[in-house]
Amino acid sequence: MSERKVSPASPGGFRDYLPADMIPRAEMLRTIERVFERFGFDPLKTPGIERLSVLTGGDDETTKLIYQATLGRRDLLEPLALRFDLTVPLARVVAANADLPRPFKRYQVGDVWRGEKPQAGRFREFMQFDADIVGTTSVAADTEIVALMVATMQELVPDEPFRVHFNTRKLLNGLPAYAGFAEERAADVLRIIDKLPKVGIEAVLRELGKRPPDEECVEELEGADQRESAFGAGLSADAVTKIGAFLEATGTTDELLDQMSALFAGVAVAEEGIEQMRQIVTSLRAMQVNETNWVFDLSIARGLSYYTGPVFETFLGRLPKIGSVFSGGRYDGLVSRFIEGNIAAVGASVGVDRLFAALTELGRIMRVRTVTKVLVTVMDEKFRNQCSQVASQLRADGISTALWCGDERSFKSQIAYATRQEIPVVLIIGANEAEGDMVAIKDMAARKQWTVMRAEVPHAVREILAR
Amino acid sequence: MSERKVSPASPGGFRDYLPADMIPRAEMLRTIERVFERFGFDPLKTPGIERLSVLTGGDDETTKLIYQATLGRRDLLEPLALRFDLTVPLARVVAANADLPRPFKRYQVGDVWRGEKPQAGRFREFMQFDADIVGTTSVAADTEIVALMVATMQELVPDEPFRVHFNTRKLLNGLPAYAGFAEERAADVLRIIDKLPKVGIEAVLRELGKRPPDEECVEELEGADQRESAFGAGLSADAVTKIGAFLEATGTTDELLDQMSALFAGVAVAEEGIEQMRQIVTSLRAMQVNETNWVFDLSIARGLSYYTGPVFETFLGRLPKIGSVFSGGRYDGLVSRFIEGNIAAVGASVGVDRLFAALTELGRIMRVRTVTKVLVTVMDEKFRNQCSQVASQLRADGISTALWCGDERSFKSQIAYATRQEIPVVLIIGANEAEGDMVAIKDMAARKQWTVMRAEVPHAVREILAR
Repeated sequence: MSERKVSPASPGGFRDYLPADMIPRAEMLRTIERVFERFGFDPLKTPGIERLSVLTGGDDETTKLIYQATLGRRDLLEPLALRFDLTVPLARVVAANADLPRPFKRYQVGDVWRGEKPQAGRFREFMQFDADIVGTTSVAADTEIVALMVATMQELVPDEPFRVHFNTRKLLNGLPAYAGFAEERAADVLRIIDKLPKVGIEAVLRELGKRPPDEECVEELEGADQRESAFGAGLSADAVTKIGAFLEATGTTDELLDQMSALFAGVAVAEEGIEQMRQIVTSLRAMQVNETNWVFDLSIARGLSYYTGPVFETFLGRLPKIGSVFSGGRYDGLVSRFIEGNIAAVGASVGVDRLFAALTELGRIMRVRTVTKVLVTVMDEKFRNQCSQVASQLRADGISTALWCGDERSFKSQIAYATRQEIPVVLIIGANEAEGDMVAIKDMAARKQWTVMRAEVPHAVREILAR
Repeated sequence: MSERKVSPASPGGFRDYLPADMIPRAEMLRTIERVFERFGFDPLKTPGIERLSVLTGGDDETTKLIYQATLGRRDLLEPLALRFDLTVPLARVVAANADLPRPFKRYQVGDVWRGEKPQAGRFREFMQFDADIVGTTSVAADTEIVALMVATMQELVPDEPFRVHFNTRKLLNGLPAYAGFAEERAADVLRIIDKLPKVGIEAVLRELGKRPPDEECVEELEGADQRESAFGAGLSADAVTKIGAFLEATGTTDELLDQMSALFAGVAVAEEGIEQMRQIVTSLRAMQVNETNWVFDLSIARGLSYYTGPVFETFLGRLPKIGSVFSGGRYDGLVSRFIEGNIAAVGASVGVDRLFAALTELGRIMRVRTVTKVLVTVMDEKFRNQCSQVASQLRADGISTALWCGDERSFKSQIAYATRQEIPVVLIIGANEAEGDMVAIKDMAARKQWTVMRAEVPHAVREILAR
């Protein structure tokens, strides 16, 4: 009679990375870390668990996506939860450590959790790799982030077309003054503009002109969808025409900036935003950052409510539909959730799992079965000590070496293991070799075998690996 | 009127790592990863969240320590929880992936969560760095783990005394046959023996001889403490004497092994355990692993119930009281929680945070404020483009470089920043430099400044950094 077994399944929305994926993924993370450090960002680590109030800032929509962490009765006093990004914890750290340098440049890599509906390529636990500059309002910091994004992508996918798209929230903030509608209508206007990619320009402009929701009527309707289809933003025909001109603008980076300058002339907040876009463009050109890798793009707005200035998204040229793989923006108000006064910040985050999935789809991920370069077989337990010594010698030389320790004793099964794992070099010590202080070397790819003195082994192995 | 602020505190038992700690900690993790890969271990990643049933295996004591992860009503069907170690998730992966190679050698680094009472140096979230060999019963695998533990510690703390202590659970499993008591008493005997370091040999032997708990009486007593003080294991005087001889054995590794062979002669499970200890010792000597770095130690037992054979702990010579910093053992039954049949496994885990705290206490952690080696100052926004170009040049050369992007514009505040952050090199471009395509270099430690052609900057910086 056998006891009842626990299913070894992961929960929906969670996944394992086996070595064939983890080896190139670890390489990807090392590359990102190297570029971030080269730009002078320092590592930070915050816990996965935070106080719930730190994460939500009282926003109910966010709360729905957050995993709470409970430990029986003891922790009921203070609800705890798993972080859903690395930006809010950074804001907490900045608020809690008044003595950090300004600007404070930090990077952080870590898993985050969101209870969204799992879909193909979308998980409930995923890794982010963030770089942020805190404590400066200077557009030079925004420029550094864009330059960092381009440099990181260039290192990760040197021959793959990609582009960092940027825009500024200050243009949207300038819409009421530009088009001539009341600030109170702004939320409705933005909600309608956000539908542009889905419903098209005609539908958006029509809805902008429809009468706005009336509080009494709204309460009779159930659900946000009904409300949205029944009502518009109540803008005047003139305002709708002006927003149309804004939404339909097209052209190169320079053309678009000139158009925006003309449209928003006299609207201070928008003019400031456009000037910052121009400064970013000028600096990127000075640094000779390849123009095929960045563009000013009015369609970028970034969903998160905490963005206040420039916003950035990164798309792969051959896989635009998977969405942005490296995104961010300026969020000058977030730290004030915790302390009086304002601490400005700007940053961006690599969606590690999404980027990895994309590069896999593009065939840019070299899958290897193991990091092991050499298998030292054990033909006969009598010679295990010699085998151990050879393995130690190779390891001391920095060569990844497995010493056979399986239950199967046959030489055939050890060779089968090396073949299956695609280990390039196999070493063999039989009676003859043991006696003469020799080692037989098998070059698996070349299907050749020869014998060398034990002291020569690391050199001989390096020669095979160099090919 | 200011809005109500959220406290920026972390929950008790959770902590941040600021850059001064994270820079050396990241270096520590890289070293461990390098040694683990050199021994042929491959990376694996499993999610932080698992199904609760996967983690507990029905053990209520474990359940109390586990953080459950809840997402409102939707997830009530299947309780989810945060992993408390990386070993149980590995067993799940092995059970779920029948096609993994045997042996399967994997490493994993990640945070784990345990709702234990927070204490100095003990946290509710901490990082483990594990290496395991799955799918082999061979003691050669146990030996590899011990050799890996010694090699890792040697790389991490080359001049620091440390020692890997090992023992085998098979000696404890042989106690009933050796001392002559019923198997049903074994749990009580082990519970009492576990108190040895706290209460001493006399008290342990006295308690072993006291009458055993009687189920009816036990139910009247409240709490485990009363039960433990009121009752013993009910062993005969002869059995107590024999256990005394076992517990009081002392000597070198070889002496102890000989004593155990004599004491446990004829007890098959113990003899097998002793033979495995001898094989580990022989292999370590063959590999010339320094004998000051390992020892056979009867006092090592490892609390976790899943260990079945050899067990390992690592102590720092100058800081034994913080406990083991790198521990493990053989756990041949864990995978059978999930599937029929047995998959043997052995491994060990670095307690990253405990080890880091210990090395900090020992003064072995070099704290630096930043990874940044060069600060390119911006004297005048007119010359920002030239400054950007120099920064790009250094970054392309792999030198960690910050380009000033703070709100403070004064040269004085930029120098103060470099001083405070201990950035070794500062570059300056004023009107004269900009005109002549030159850059002024300030060697902060030597308090010297001179001017070079822009093309010479990386070379000049490297010379300063090499000193």
